[in-house]
Amino acid sequence: MSGAELTLVGDEHRHLVRVLRAAPGDRIVAVDGAGCAYDAVITAISRQDVRCSIEGRHPRRHELPVSVTIAAALLKNPGRFEIVIEKATELGVARIVPLRTERVIATSARVDRWSAVALAAMKQCGRCLLPVVERPVDFGAFIGRGAPAGLRLIPHERAALPLDEALKGHGEQDVVVCTGPEGGFTEGEIALASGAGFIPVRLGDRRLRAETAAVAALAAVMLAVS
Amino acid sequence: MSGAELTLVGDEHRHLVRVLRAAPGDRIVAVDGAGCAYDAVITAISRQDVRCSIEGRHPRRHELPVSVTIAAALLKNPGRFEIVIEKATELGVARIVPLRTERVIATSARVDRWSAVALAAMKQCGRCLLPVVERPVDFGAFIGRGAPAGLRLIPHERAALPLDEALKGHGEQDVVVCTGPEGGFTEGEIALASGAGFIPVRLGDRRLRAETAAVAALAAVMLAVS
Repeated sequence: MSGAELTLVGDEHRHLVRVLRAAPGDRIVAVDGAGCAYDAVITAISRQDVRCSIEGRHPRRHELPVSVTIAAALLKNPGRFEIVIEKATELGVARIVPLRTERVIATSARVDRWSAVALAAMKQCGRCLLPVVERPVDFGAFIGRGAPAGLRLIPHERAALPLDEALKGHGEQDVVVCTGPEGGFTEGEIALASGAGFIPVRLGDRRLRAETAAVAALAAVMLAVS
Repeated sequence: MSGAELTLVGDEHRHLVRVLRAAPGDRIVAVDGAGCAYDAVITAISRQDVRCSIEGRHPRRHELPVSVTIAAALLKNPGRFEIVIEKATELGVARIVPLRTERVIATSARVDRWSAVALAAMKQCGRCLLPVVERPVDFGAFIGRGAPAGLRLIPHERAALPLDEALKGHGEQDVVVCTGPEGGFTEGEIALASGAGFIPVRLGDRRLRAETAAVAALAAVMLAVS
């Protein structure tokens, strides 16, 4: 794809011209959010766009070797749910599924806001794949037919198997982590998930906040699959 | 220590009486913040205090088997530094040392506020040891004489050794994790730390935010030592 052109418009155009004061000849790194990073050289700048010549193409640069999904229950405190979105993006997840579980007491679904948080985090951490933030789904529907194949993990405070044990020998499987709301999962939900092949795992001996459990589990998954 | 008495005053008295509407005969769990949890039964409630009879004593309940220290550079965004304090407490650390490094641009040290965050997190997660939040110290002083003995780790984006590799065979050593500010550590700081036995470790291929690096590293340490 050397020799190909890239045209940047909108926010990226404004950021390059007004904030970075870019000029023709400058080298930049651009990402398409679909899994590819590009080394490029600016060839022309107009009031509408920045044109670049692509000099190198790097599929999956800074991406995990497997696809990781986080299915996280909606949280009452929207700021804490945004922490999950931001940190999940930094830790390399490909897909974020907000869940409605029995004990969820959140009402608002702010998919546009969450996607903006993921976009900002993607750029900040140097990824080239923008995680997909889906619309909220019911826990049962996700467990029944929405969850991808792979190593399926559900952190739960009464589980016996430590997460790091469950991650040993994950091979090259994709991973999905399902985390609960402030009040946790019900026993019925854990049974439903277990029936669908989700492994209940333990994250130490303390009662972690919902967003801490999500971030801690994803950190361990990221290190195990890297 | 069965038969001993416990007297709760101030905030704990108010919380029991006004929020939980406790009554004589109720069973409670109390923690001393110094590493012990108590099963107790309320024997009397006055306007000043709640008296309990101690029925069981549980040293180090829900505490890690080794002492973990996080020495984290001060952050420009105080909310993000409070995330480090809260999550470090949930993940079981015993000691929190705010660091002034070359690239720190924060000015305010809010030790009282941070201690309050740690206290709230300790109660919420069921620990019985309140992490000590120290006054900020210079990086050089911490590396030179403030850092405890044990497995010393310093996450750095140019390190080659993955954190989970460094944690294999940690034995029963105490652990100290040293994390940088938004702009990272300087090469000089990494060299200084390496000279003092800190092992530079890698946290994946993405540029993690400062507070994400701290939380991700502590999650991995918590799982490895549990």
